[in-house]
This record gives sequence, C-alpha cells and structure tokens, in this order.
Amino acid sequence: MSAMSWPAAVMLLTLLLMFYTAWQVGRARVAYGVKAPATIGNELFERHFRVQMNTLENTVAFLPALWLAAWYFNPRWAALAGAVWLAGRIWYALGYITSPKQRSRGFVVAGAAWVTLMAMSTWGIVRFVAGVT
Amino acid sequence: MSAMSWPAAVMLLTLLLMFYTAWQVGRARVAYGVKAPATIGNELFERHFRVQMNTLENTVAFLPALWLAAWYFNPRWAALAGAVWLAGRIWYALGYITSPKQRSRGFVVAGAAWVTLMAMSTWGIVRFVAGVT
Amino acid sequence: MSAMSWPAAVMLLTLLLMFYTAWQVGRARVAYGVKAPATIGNELFERHFRVQMNTLENTVAFLPALWLAAWYFNPRWAALAGAVWLAGRIWYALGYITSPKQRSRGFVVAGAAWVTLMAMSTWGIVRFVAGVT
Repeated sequence: MSAMSWPAAVMLLTLLLMFYTAWQVGRARVAYGVKAPATIGNELFERHFRVQMNTLENTVAFLPALWLAAWYFNPRWAALAGAVWLAGRIWYALGYITSPKQRSRGFVVAGAAWVTLMAMSTWGIVRFVAGVT
Repeated sequence: MSAMSWPAAVMLLTLLLMFYTAWQVGRARVAYGVKAPATIGNELFERHFRVQMNTLENTVAFLPALWLAAWYFNPRWAALAGAVWLAGRIWYALGYITSPKQRSRGFVVAGAAWVTLMAMSTWGIVRFVAGVT
Repeated sequence: MSAMSWPAAVMLLTLLLMFYTAWQVGRARVAYGVKAPATIGNELFERHFRVQMNTLENTVAFLPALWLAAWYFNPRWAALAGAVWLAGRIWYALGYITSPKQRSRGFVVAGAAWVTLMAMSTWGIVRFVAGVT
C-alpha cells in the first residue's frame, strides 16, 4: 500500500491541475465578458476553455493508465512517468494561453509519458492474461 | 471491504446523475430542434448541454478525490462528503435549467464538499509519504 | 487479482479507443482547416469532434461501472459486458463518421451493455450495504 502512495500523490496533483484550468475558465468568463452558457465568441476565452477541455479529456485517459501501470508494472515507475505527464500538461496549459502554437511541446512530453504508461500497462496485463505471473 | 461499499454506493449514484444529464440533452435536442453534431443555436438547449458538460468535468475531478479520501482518510467520512457533493450537483443541475443564475448555490455546496475530500486526501497521502503511518 | 485482469484488459482497450478518437480529431483539424481553438465551422470536423466528446463522456460513466460490477458482482461477467460496450462504441464511432444517422445502433448496443453493468453493480452493492454478504 505504501508504494501505491506515489501514484496516489500524482493523482492528487492532477486533480489540482484540473481545478486550476477550470478556475481560469471562470476568471476568463468574467474578464472577457462571455456569459454562461456560451463557450465561444472571444478568442482568448476560447483558449482557456480549450485548455480545460483538453486537460479533462487527457486526464480521463491518464488516470486509468497510471493505475494500470502501478498495479501491473511498478507503482514507483508509474508515478515517475505520471510526474512527467503532469509537468508536460502544465507546460501545455501555460503555453496555450500565451499562444495556441506554443501548446505543442508540453503536449508531446505528456503524450510520450502516456505512451510509456500504456506500454507498462500492456506488458503487465499481457503477462497476467498469459498466466506467466 | 464492507466500509468501502459506502463510497461505492455514492459512485453508483453519481453515474446515474451523469446518465440523467446526458438523457436530458438528448430530449432537449428533439424539443428544441438542435440536430447532431450541432451543440449551439438554442439557448435552452445550451443550458442542458452545459449542465451535462459541467457534470462530466466535475465528476472526473470528484471520483478520484472520493476514493483517495476513502483509502487514505476514512471511507465513511468520504462517502458522507461525497453525498453532500452529489446533493449539490443535483441542486446545480435543476437550478441551471430554471435559470443560469440559479446554478450558483448547488455549485458552491458541491465545491465545498470537493475541497473537503481533497483536504482528507492530502492529509492522508502526506502522512503516508512522510512514513508516519 | 488474476480474474481482475479481464476488466483491466477491457479498460486498456478503452483507453486506446479514446486515443484513436482524439487522434482522428487532430487529423480532421488539418484535413478540414479548423484551427485551434475553434471546434465548429466544418460539419465533417464536427462529426469527429462529437465522436471524441461522446466517447469521452461515455468512458467516464463506463469505467467506474465496469469496476463496480467487477468488484461487487463478478470480474469475468463485468469484462464480458465491458467488451460488448467497447464493440458498440467502435461501431458508433465508425457509423457517426459515415453519417450522423448511422450512430444509433452502436450507441444502443453500448447503452445496453452499460445498463447491464449498472444492474450488476446495483445488485452487488445493495447486497453489501444490506449486509447480506
């Protein structure tokens, strides 16, 4: 259980990133005068909104991969790849707000970390399903 | 395992809330003549759509916090805060449909419950990571 | 742990489906000239975008139901219903791209599989909560 605390800590920080991106959308609604339920009409608001949505969809694909890798491969290595993913997603969010073109690098870093987690998970699950415990 | 059934029950009810908000969007598509893949063009449809999307994004941040709090703090207290979150989200959904301005109170109640879960999780994980089991 | 590898394998494949639908949106952005952060303006792009969003929201409701059914009912039956859900979602995605009208059948198959998982979960949790272990 103790080693599982590392991916748990990464998950906790991921939730804080989600909260931060949602908070920024709320602030952008006020700053750029985009009233709910509208989500378009101002390009700077849309950047914040896309950051939130992209963070959301990537989080949904990330958290299960993090735990699969933790259970079926190794919790410490999974947490390390998860920390890289988190750093990439923060870089992505800050870059996108500056300019949509600057979202690429963080996106790629986080993507590579996700692929690593998926590879760990696949290797571990195939081993289990093949019964080669 | 038995005490973990309380957060499990809250998770099950949360899935039903997600289903309900998605169902309402489907009904609103027909009622206000907004054909897929469009998601804008009618203000009443957009309210239902925003309720669904907001429920979705909040659920993604809620369920991991619920389980972190259940594992690292206490399953019964986590389930209680989770039940408050659920009540707040139902209040939010019903209020938003009536008028976008009436979404605030339920949103704040659910937000306070989420902060409580995050505090429980942080306290529990920090204790584990610090090795003060 | 070994029987839990079946729902784990279904979860892994679900993450690949999520990746595929996100990848298709990226390709459609280039193919139809819809630059970020815009998400509307071209009907074919919007189909890909709606497939991704619908896959996302359904995955968020599916994965918790899959694990509740695996824990509280039976991991093999849960994985089987999960595999049907996955097949339905693939059918939905391919159908929607061809024509929005052709999204219905896969959607219904996946929906029926989800209802089955929810029924398994409810039955299992009610039994636990009622203490009739």
